[in-house]
Amino acid sequence: MTDRVVAEHIARYFTSGSAIRRMFEEGLRLKASHGADAVADLSIGNPDFDPPPEFLEALQRVAALKGHHAYMPNAGYPHVRGRIADYLNQHRYFDGITRDKIIMTTGAAGALNIVLATLLARGEEVIVIAPYFVEYRFYVEAHAGVVRLADTDDHFDLDIDRIAGAITDKTRAVMVNSPNNPSGRVYSRSSLEKLAALLTAESERRGHPIFLISDEPYREILYTDEAFVSPASVYRNSFMCYSWSKSFSISGERIGYVAINPSLQTDDWGLLIGSLAMCNRSLGFVNAPALMQKVIAESVDARVDISHYREKRELLRQALDDGGFEYADPDGTFYFFVRTPEAEVDFIDRARKHLLLVVPGTDFGRPGYFRISYAAPRPTIELACRKLLDIAKEIAGEKVPA
Amino acid sequence: MTDRVVAEHIARYFTSGSAIRRMFEEGLRLKASHGADAVADLSIGNPDFDPPPEFLEALQRVAALKGHHAYMPNAGYPHVRGRIADYLNQHRYFDGITRDKIIMTTGAAGALNIVLATLLARGEEVIVIAPYFVEYRFYVEAHAGVVRLADTDDHFDLDIDRIAGAITDKTRAVMVNSPNNPSGRVYSRSSLEKLAALLTAESERRGHPIFLISDEPYREILYTDEAFVSPASVYRNSFMCYSWSKSFSISGERIGYVAINPSLQTDDWGLLIGSLAMCNRSLGFVNAPALMQKVIAESVDARVDISHYREKRELLRQALDDGGFEYADPDGTFYFFVRTPEAEVDFIDRARKHLLLVVPGTDFGRPGYFRISYAAPRPTIELACRKLLDIAKEIAGEKVPA
Repeated sequence: MTDRVVAEHIARYFTSGSAIRRMFEEGLRLKASHGADAVADLSIGNPDFDPPPEFLEALQRVAALKGHHAYMPNAGYPHVRGRIADYLNQHRYFDGITRDKIIMTTGAAGALNIVLATLLARGEEVIVIAPYFVEYRFYVEAHAGVVRLADTDDHFDLDIDRIAGAITDKTRAVMVNSPNNPSGRVYSRSSLEKLAALLTAESERRGHPIFLISDEPYREILYTDEAFVSPASVYRNSFMCYSWSKSFSISGERIGYVAINPSLQTDDWGLLIGSLAMCNRSLGFVNAPALMQKVIAESVDARVDISHYREKRELLRQALDDGGFEYADPDGTFYFFVRTPEAEVDFIDRARKHLLLVVPGTDFGRPGYFRISYAAPRPTIELACRKLLDIAKEIAGEKVPA
Repeated sequence: MTDRVVAEHIARYFTSGSAIRRMFEEGLRLKASHGADAVADLSIGNPDFDPPPEFLEALQRVAALKGHHAYMPNAGYPHVRGRIADYLNQHRYFDGITRDKIIMTTGAAGALNIVLATLLARGEEVIVIAPYFVEYRFYVEAHAGVVRLADTDDHFDLDIDRIAGAITDKTRAVMVNSPNNPSGRVYSRSSLEKLAALLTAESERRGHPIFLISDEPYREILYTDEAFVSPASVYRNSFMCYSWSKSFSISGERIGYVAINPSLQTDDWGLLIGSLAMCNRSLGFVNAPALMQKVIAESVDARVDISHYREKRELLRQALDDGGFEYADPDGTFYFFVRTPEAEVDFIDRARKHLLLVVPGTDFGRPGYFRISYAAPRPTIELACRKLLDIAKEIAGEKVPA
């Protein structure tokens, strides 16, 4: 008798695994054997910093109330949805969005999953812009969709021709992530307008809408002078997926939302909102965590302080420049996506020998790169900078032996 | 151009909808037109009572800490998993379970979904005991599984012969829910031992294990003198799925766990636990809400006070008896599952005209019944009792005209 417990396809996923997870485990091993202080682990995008004081104060206030902890409507508390709608209007994300077009979700991952579940019939295609967050593939395939990749250009900007080339009669949606994990690129308004024009024309030509799913949890972590332009605001048939995981450093709390562009074309809003709420329930999320919804409603205006990211970014940029590494200057996020100065696998291996943990570009669908996350304590960043220089020297030494 | 937004199968689910949801909406309409006090809504199983004081105190303590809100391992905080393991050992659910066999989840719905995702290959079958919680079908089908129903006997006890008859070479698991929603039945040890013997024999005969998935969020809401026997403790190849939604009245917070029977047969525990944790992430749950994990770790021993349920149960039982309704006396939960004294659809309609909202048995896979939930305020219960008597008299009057 076989004792097969785990389904074969799951065991295969697990064993082939994501490099990020392997890195994580390798990191634990290296830290155990060399001491945590000796390892510069820049592999995980997990901001573990203090949330904004407004959030922490709201949390204490809400916890002290003898409030309700029961189910609310699957879309979330009406007053919380109303608060998010106000915020989105105030900050000009949308023009006159109302709370009935907001669904509170279990983080952005929950948001993306209920949107995909609502939109996708078996075999329909979702165009994902590569490099991309590795979990997107799981999300699309979980809802019987098919991922088609469209590479960005070398500066990680949208390549409209490649996106056009990836569209077929089965295309149901395009997923974009701006600011982008791993590249840090923020798509410009003009770039997004070209995308919107393409999707409008292709929707018209093919006789059914192609939707835009915009994943934007990094939008407050920006280093440019220009205001952020939400992709979901530029194209009417858009779903905005957001979470406070990155901006508030509360990724463990699983709180986010879907906001639907109020100009989306439908003659049945009730069906659309109802289906998203139904999927929230039937996928097992049920509703976004009750307490966090209330805390967010009281702290949504909190200022996001990115000064520490800015400093770490400058440190790393200096080290990368000194080491002669090539990278496209990121506009946002807490990542650098850097060209490997030798074969990717060799570089990752070399870095690991130096006790520097980074994620190979292959994991994001763009081989020949590595991702650095600077959502890490400053001493770790400083250690990593020294290691990057050592590694660069070592490679240079091998290339040009004395 | 069509403006189809929602996928056809989702629109169909939504439109055909669950009767519970239709009831909910009908309830809102009736309350709006007749006044909330005039409607006895016993349709929803949503306990909206004060959580135990230990929980509320722990919540305030944890909220006041400047703690972490970042991602933790996808399986949950090690210390929280350890606390649950201790609890399960102390209360003799398992003999020597360790924290590595516990995965913290987004409620029991999250727990069931990651177990099904981990176990099921496309087309594999899950036997569900009917009457059953309507969402089970969504959960199984979301992971490409096929539901096969096995009816209980007329007392809502397990019918081992029917379960045996439902087993095929494709059977991957049996799902049980004790205490049962909607029947309130708790399966006895002897009944569970027969089930275990059947599954052991069939696993042996067919050369692959058949798993037991035990959904037991109602296990503290018990009115019998016998201690609860967890189905997951009686059969080794079992997954226990639990949430504090019902016991602590915190269904909105989405906190629960999977505990794997430590005697489960596998030669690769790492693969099994890793796959469950991976599914937690890839299905979009990522991890159970961080703050609630910590609160639960500090309040898991809280006493669950069911005295108010006991009182409401007695009120309803009296009314049902006085009205001549037929029902199998429930052992637990906050439900009665009652035979309709006329055609189900007529009865539900008649009840609605009396402003009494209950859920038809058809929604649980057992036509000819209706479910009453007494997770409602006492005045609502008292109102419902009067309405049940009025309805019984009305039906009797129609049957035997004066």
